[in-house]
Amino acid sequence: MHNKMNLPDFRDVDGAYERLKDRVVRTPLLRADALDAAVGRPVFVKAECLQKTGSFKYRGASNRVLQLTDAQRKTGVVAFSSGNHAQGMAAAAAEAKVPVVIIMPKDAPAVKIEGVRDCGAQIVLYDRYHESREEIGARMAAERNAVLVSSYDDPMIIAGQGSAGIEAAQQLQEFGVVAEALITNAGGGGLTAGLALAWEELCPIAKIYTAEPDDFDDHKRSFAAGERQSNASLAGSACDALLTPEPGHLTFTINKTRVCAGLSASDEEAFAAMRFAFRHLKIVLEPGGAIALACALQKRVPGNGPLCVFATGGNVEPALFAKVLGAA
Amino acid sequence: MHNKMNLPDFRDVDGAYERLKDRVVRTPLLRADALDAAVGRPVFVKAECLQKTGSFKYRGASNRVLQLTDAQRKTGVVAFSSGNHAQGMAAAAAEAKVPVVIIMPKDAPAVKIEGVRDCGAQIVLYDRYHESREEIGARMAAERNAVLVSSYDDPMIIAGQGSAGIEAAQQLQEFGVVAEALITNAGGGGLTAGLALAWEELCPIAKIYTAEPDDFDDHKRSFAAGERQSNASLAGSACDALLTPEPGHLTFTINKTRVCAGLSASDEEAFAAMRFAFRHLKIVLEPGGAIALACALQKRVPGNGPLCVFATGGNVEPALFAKVLGAA
Repeated sequence: MHNKMNLPDFRDVDGAYERLKDRVVRTPLLRADALDAAVGRPVFVKAECLQKTGSFKYRGASNRVLQLTDAQRKTGVVAFSSGNHAQGMAAAAAEAKVPVVIIMPKDAPAVKIEGVRDCGAQIVLYDRYHESREEIGARMAAERNAVLVSSYDDPMIIAGQGSAGIEAAQQLQEFGVVAEALITNAGGGGLTAGLALAWEELCPIAKIYTAEPDDFDDHKRSFAAGERQSNASLAGSACDALLTPEPGHLTFTINKTRVCAGLSASDEEAFAAMRFAFRHLKIVLEPGGAIALACALQKRVPGNGPLCVFATGGNVEPALFAKVLGAA
Repeated sequence: MHNKMNLPDFRDVDGAYERLKDRVVRTPLLRADALDAAVGRPVFVKAECLQKTGSFKYRGASNRVLQLTDAQRKTGVVAFSSGNHAQGMAAAAAEAKVPVVIIMPKDAPAVKIEGVRDCGAQIVLYDRYHESREEIGARMAAERNAVLVSSYDDPMIIAGQGSAGIEAAQQLQEFGVVAEALITNAGGGGLTAGLALAWEELCPIAKIYTAEPDDFDDHKRSFAAGERQSNASLAGSACDALLTPEPGHLTFTINKTRVCAGLSASDEEAFAAMRFAFRHLKIVLEPGGAIALACALQKRVPGNGPLCVFATGGNVEPALFAKVLGAA
């Protein structure tokens, strides 16, 4: 990190990979003949829903917590999140015995709030329509002299998420495959940035795409415009994990020169992808974890060579999942 | 295989591992803090539901098909199965371009019949209450001069399933863990036998347990009696994958001296394990794939050291899965 903006680079991602490799699940790259047939190309699904806490977020959170100073370990950390970063931070902090306060929207899925509570974290709920989680987070961190950990705009978070990209590149190499493209779900763009840094070094030929819900396609529009664009709304999609206001500052700086384009899919297409993953991959995906797979199944990713799809989270309410299955 | 009964040994399992390692999914060993807490010991779940075709059966099927002679490759293979061996055989035969006839019960889950059909296999449906699949299989194999491949009582099938045991032993070693016990779902006992052969060599300290539905506990009673016992019925449990008439001849010969004891759980306990796996592991399990996890969650596996649980299949109807989730 030898630049003014404190941008992470490949060495940081590789360092995170080494730091995390005995702590994280080396999630499999899943294959299914039916998937290849449906998409019309070889598809490799990096099943990060199988990661500890049910999403890739545990990677960045652990990488951040493991690099706290001794003083910071005592005063602890504060994080705000719709749920997956929250669970990742809560679990990483619990393992490191670091105090943690998690700020979550009142309407976050109950399964995510319970997951955070089960880790013993202190939870503060807020109203996502009338309160600013950024303000609450800044205030609570100041009160406690704690470290406020962004869910994406933090070099150590980005580097930690990127460890999944190193794994995927290694696994594709074991399969003897050179990927033509990678697509990942994007909220704030932290995973995208980590993957982009990893693959720039390990698989530079591959084109990187982001996937977002149709009406929350801030990355897609930002890449097209060349500068950060905001979403019109902060609610209104089943993809709760992806409803960030706009791409991050650090993440967009990294992604704008490394991501080929943004793609999007509807909630209904995400539900269809969840059914497909249930039927053919035997993994549980939440809507926001299935948008990249939805884009793949809708054949929106250009090209016909090997495609790596990141399936990023599986923290979904049983009632919603049952409803999605029933709608088949 | 230098014995009169043609029993496989560790060398056969290791040979299968080498033959299959670039063809199968190296399924992950999943962890969850909530699982350790619920079971009261460290638990490692070998997620074979993530295997190609949604169950471990693809391993044995591939190992068998890859060792057909040139003449046998032309006349092809015949198999009977409630569905998972059927799908494994259909996929393995399709990949090897070998003709295949699959004999399945009329009341097999539609998802399994479709899975077989999607592989291009010829399907013969039978009535499990009034017809003998063994007789139908023998007749069809004779008519075609084809190889009838048992779903469990075949040394190459047993050796192929055992490759999952070699993987699990390696993965536990990577975690720095010595397992105290292993529990696996048992239908005909082929996977159990393969795992027992693998672990006798690689993790001899571990005790091996089988898991079955309460009223279809032929292995449990056979181990207690010291000779093969039959089930009273061939239907009546949601665990369709485990409803075999009795332990296999080869498999029981292997297992009777290597398995510590048989355990069992109810369908309701299997459903609870499916919900747990959905919530905390993000994998899809069918009832028969969840009985071992159910036994673990019910704390029926003796001891409190590290436990390896095989989650063997995930081919479940969406409607049943939705119902199981809804009953939480």
